[in-house]
Amino acid sequence: MEIKVLHQVMDWNEDVSEEVKETLSAHHICMINVMGSPGAGKTSLITSLIDKLRKDWRAGVIEGDIAGQVDAERIAELGIPAVQLNTDGACHIEAMSIQHILPELPLDDLDVIFVENIGNLVCPAEFLIGESLRITILSIPEGDDKVEKYPLMFTDTDCLVLNKYDMMPYFDFDEKRVCANYETVNPGAPLFRISNRTGDGIQELADFIAEQIRKAQS
Amino acid sequence: MEIKVLHQVMDWNEDVSEEVKETLSAHHICMINVMGSPGAGKTSLITSLIDKLRKDWRAGVIEGDIAGQVDAERIAELGIPAVQLNTDGACHIEAMSIQHILPELPLDDLDVIFVENIGNLVCPAEFLIGESLRITILSIPEGDDKVEKYPLMFTDTDCLVLNKYDMMPYFDFDEKRVCANYETVNPGAPLFRISNRTGDGIQELADFIAEQIRKAQS
Repeated sequence: MEIKVLHQVMDWNEDVSEEVKETLSAHHICMINVMGSPGAGKTSLITSLIDKLRKDWRAGVIEGDIAGQVDAERIAELGIPAVQLNTDGACHIEAMSIQHILPELPLDDLDVIFVENIGNLVCPAEFLIGESLRITILSIPEGDDKVEKYPLMFTDTDCLVLNKYDMMPYFDFDEKRVCANYETVNPGAPLFRISNRTGDGIQELADFIAEQIRKAQS
Repeated sequence: MEIKVLHQVMDWNEDVSEEVKETLSAHHICMINVMGSPGAGKTSLITSLIDKLRKDWRAGVIEGDIAGQVDAERIAELGIPAVQLNTDGACHIEAMSIQHILPELPLDDLDVIFVENIGNLVCPAEFLIGESLRITILSIPEGDDKVEKYPLMFTDTDCLVLNKYDMMPYFDFDEKRVCANYETVNPGAPLFRISNRTGDGIQELADFIAEQIRKAQS
């Protein structure tokens, strides 16, 4: 009985995700679902990427949080359209919430929407939200065993970002282990090494995203 | 309808949690629920604590993981009773799973059981598992905004451990912010500053836990 309910919710979520996709497609918008653990650096990375992309593309942000608006305040400082989506305790964003909140953004004036998902390496991976691209962030201090321990998040993503790469000297992080496991669960998927603090690698990731925006608009 | 089902699951979980508590109480065992983000340092901390406690107390471990047995292998090296609990995708441990797995441990020969919950700052906080003590770990690299963003995990815990404290010089971490927010949501609850790598602070936390074991046995 319980499982049945869950399946219904999941099926329904996939239907709504398709509807969100159609809405975004009609507006030629590329929506990016940014996922990762608490403290992996999602907000900072979104901020840096928008900084690189904004000369060519018009960006908006949906800030997912369980409570509060700490992140939305940081994004609002950029002076771009941003809305806060509070899940009131829920551990992931569902497509229905995106469908409800999209009209709050000026869709005719946007090329890309970044959705910052709840900080969580588990549940967000299970829920499509109508995105064109999924980015999973793993920060070096989290450790090199995360791909084995949270496989779905690394399997169902379009690219992996190793963040806080400048911290490598201070942590016992076996990069080869991560790369090998990532290649096993998600063969051929791209991987970016960045440090949001030093700025290293941000341009390469921004170029990759620009390519995805172009694809969504063609 | 959906909410109703959730409430039923939660109520049922609380009932089972009470049953687990009774079983443990009959065996004079203190069970500790260790929670925190992926990579906060749960396994390493459990290992270090057992190392400090084992001369006086007999410890066992339940290793919660979504998949794999990376952590259980690390614990098994200590030569103490350990069982692996795979949730097969679920983002938290429920009391029912603990009830099922307890008979796998030699309950007559244990004083303390550490349960390593799934790496997740959200869902585990909602589910009692029959524990006597809850420990929430927050590591310095995760950032100083986590108490505001994941309030339940810091409200419903018996103590907060700031781990990787030796990394403080490398991260922009406002400790006063964390302490003030923690005091707001959980007034008077203890806080420990530790570095599992250097060993600083581990003894103080071990002493605190020893006191809890004594309480559970009295």
